[in-house]
Amino acid sequence: MALIVQKYGGTSVGSPERIRSVAQRVAKYKSQGHQVVVVVSAMSGETNRLIALAKEIQKHPDPRELDVVISTGEQVTIGLVSMALMEQGLKAKSYTGAQVKIHTDSAFTKARIASIDEENIRTDLANDYVVVVAGFQGMDEAGNITTLGRGGSDTTGVAIAAALRADECQIYTDVDGVYTTDPRMVPEARRLKSITFEEMLEMASLGSKVLQIRSVEFAGKYKVKLRVLSSFADEGEGTLITFEENNKMEQAIISGIAFNRDEAKITVRGVPDKPGIAYQILGPVSEANIDVDMIIQNVGVDGSTDFSFTVHRNEFNKTLDILKGKVQPHIGARDVIGDNKTAKVSVVGVGMRSHVGIASKMFRTLAEEGINIQMISTSEIKISVVIDEKYLELAVRILHKAFDLDQEAI
Amino acid sequence: MALIVQKYGGTSVGSPERIRSVAQRVAKYKSQGHQVVVVVSAMSGETNRLIALAKEIQKHPDPRELDVVISTGEQVTIGLVSMALMEQGLKAKSYTGAQVKIHTDSAFTKARIASIDEENIRTDLANDYVVVVAGFQGMDEAGNITTLGRGGSDTTGVAIAAALRADECQIYTDVDGVYTTDPRMVPEARRLKSITFEEMLEMASLGSKVLQIRSVEFAGKYKVKLRVLSSFADEGEGTLITFEENNKMEQAIISGIAFNRDEAKITVRGVPDKPGIAYQILGPVSEANIDVDMIIQNVGVDGSTDFSFTVHRNEFNKTLDILKGKVQPHIGARDVIGDNKTAKVSVVGVGMRSHVGIASKMFRTLAEEGINIQMISTSEIKISVVIDEKYLELAVRILHKAFDLDQEAI
Repeated sequence: MALIVQKYGGTSVGSPERIRSVAQRVAKYKSQGHQVVVVVSAMSGETNRLIALAKEIQKHPDPRELDVVISTGEQVTIGLVSMALMEQGLKAKSYTGAQVKIHTDSAFTKARIASIDEENIRTDLANDYVVVVAGFQGMDEAGNITTLGRGGSDTTGVAIAAALRADECQIYTDVDGVYTTDPRMVPEARRLKSITFEEMLEMASLGSKVLQIRSVEFAGKYKVKLRVLSSFADEGEGTLITFEENNKMEQAIISGIAFNRDEAKITVRGVPDKPGIAYQILGPVSEANIDVDMIIQNVGVDGSTDFSFTVHRNEFNKTLDILKGKVQPHIGARDVIGDNKTAKVSVVGVGMRSHVGIASKMFRTLAEEGINIQMISTSEIKISVVIDEKYLELAVRILHKAFDLDQEAI
Repeated sequence: MALIVQKYGGTSVGSPERIRSVAQRVAKYKSQGHQVVVVVSAMSGETNRLIALAKEIQKHPDPRELDVVISTGEQVTIGLVSMALMEQGLKAKSYTGAQVKIHTDSAFTKARIASIDEENIRTDLANDYVVVVAGFQGMDEAGNITTLGRGGSDTTGVAIAAALRADECQIYTDVDGVYTTDPRMVPEARRLKSITFEEMLEMASLGSKVLQIRSVEFAGKYKVKLRVLSSFADEGEGTLITFEENNKMEQAIISGIAFNRDEAKITVRGVPDKPGIAYQILGPVSEANIDVDMIIQNVGVDGSTDFSFTVHRNEFNKTLDILKGKVQPHIGARDVIGDNKTAKVSVVGVGMRSHVGIASKMFRTLAEEGINIQMISTSEIKISVVIDEKYLELAVRILHKAFDLDQEAI
């Protein structure tokens, strides 16, 4: 008997029929003697509908009130899923984030989980209930409703699994695992049987979108066994996320090509080259709760340098305003420029640690197609480049082929 | 400066445009120096949509989970209304029932308010906030979400007004006051400038549908000054509900004709005529949380009697099942029969206390049109009859005319 947390995304609970199918899968696990906690997202389209409604009232919806509105999406799902479980003859009980209680900070629309009271869930599980928890939401210290930001339901799933010390956290989605790249862009993309935690972290943060990055961080921190599965296929073992390199079954050098279309590039030019300058630039950005992705600063010339970073495209104008209003006059930089028609492509793989020439192969492949590289950033297991958005599909396809990702590893 | 609670029903917040119009009215009151608490229903159609969704999953939705689902309707509205108030330049803050906290019993889908913590609302009001509270919902002792049943938002409005000792509770709806009868049925119906609490109680319980009965009871109990107004008309003073008979401005004998189309009639025949029998019949019905309206028991003949009562049409089959299954064999009654094609019509007025002949005039009027009376029940200020549903419109129209309700009182 195992304790399993299953997280279902929006498309997996997108209709009464889909919800019944979720209940049937849960019933199968229950009949095998497992305890099951189900974490659910809002029905697909619902969160967008609610955001659109809010924007009809207020162009930039108040974050606290927006969270009150959009958190209803998951609340509807938990009730419906609980009913569907009862129809399968199971005992079921729903919990909103506040009811659990999932304590978060007060950063409305992008809150972070601080702690989880798992006591009531444990009692319910012991009494043979399937517990159904609303993903994506929590409650701050003052009792305000918060949400965790897009994809936050994955984080809820993993956090609940960590709090309960669950045997496995299964993330059900509309794909049946992690692929070498997005199969919608490259038909030859293959499903990976396993991927290391670090690769997954890079894949997720770079935009593979199968799992939200924070959920993978959480899983790594609390050693939660994480598996990505399809809620549309009855069988299949999905992709297991492992925490040790040598557990990896496929020993390819490169595991996948990740990409992110929503990247906007910002450069602060003529920055005095002195200590503390990076903080003076990024401090105000971070205070505005804007997530920064790549950060690049080259060596200075004549006591001044250029400082570049990328943010989500939606935050582009807000970030420019902050830099031009607060930062540039303060630090005496020459100029702030930006481009929101860029995209990021990355090759990811733990294998590159022990293999040279990955970077040069990547750059040569892009150069042969005449794709100009605007920024480069590397870590131990990935190399990322920022390019013109219009070359994104081409870049992903040629890199996928160049690194033989369309063929099974030996 | 007054403290005003304004309750807006579903049609009053049925679209972004309507919500903006609510915010504008609140801003007008704020600019006059008043403190305002706004209590809102779900946007029109939303509760029905959610119930239909639940019924797609479970034919008879689990009450606890149904409350989890349908309480989201008001939660969306409080967020949107708060945003609209901010757009008017006001400070605003929303509260779900659980956040207030509005404590209720655990009778899911028809819970009753036990107490209200008004401390946080008071603090917000003192800090110049408009407080926006979700109607229709609360939280039981265990932290479960509960709802108060149809029309429960009125009750929330009055209960909040009582807890805050507000100067006035304004109920905004799609009609501009209380009429002598439903103007959709009788075009000659007139708006009453005031109506006594007792009359209102009879009108509401008998199906006039302007206010929910529990809200009027609450208002009476806590002496809340209650006013019914239209949210679609900018001016107009609506109908004031008064608590003393001599405050009544219009001294008509009869104030209005109330009716209820959703009445189902049930008769237990051949009941042994002995003490405790009424309890033995209605106890199990009440335990199943079914509201009973009229109750009639005539004198017995030969040690046995017939016992009749009415319930909401939706509860008809459930009630029959209970009576046939549990009650009839237990008490040894001869038969249980029922009819769900009935309707109730009542004449209401404090004036009938001091005027004889009201009943006979009512019965004669119906008889002249050949309408058979199936049941009669009377109180000090109303006379109700149950008739065949198909005669309902005719009965209301002829009674409205017979009691001169189409003419201004002297």
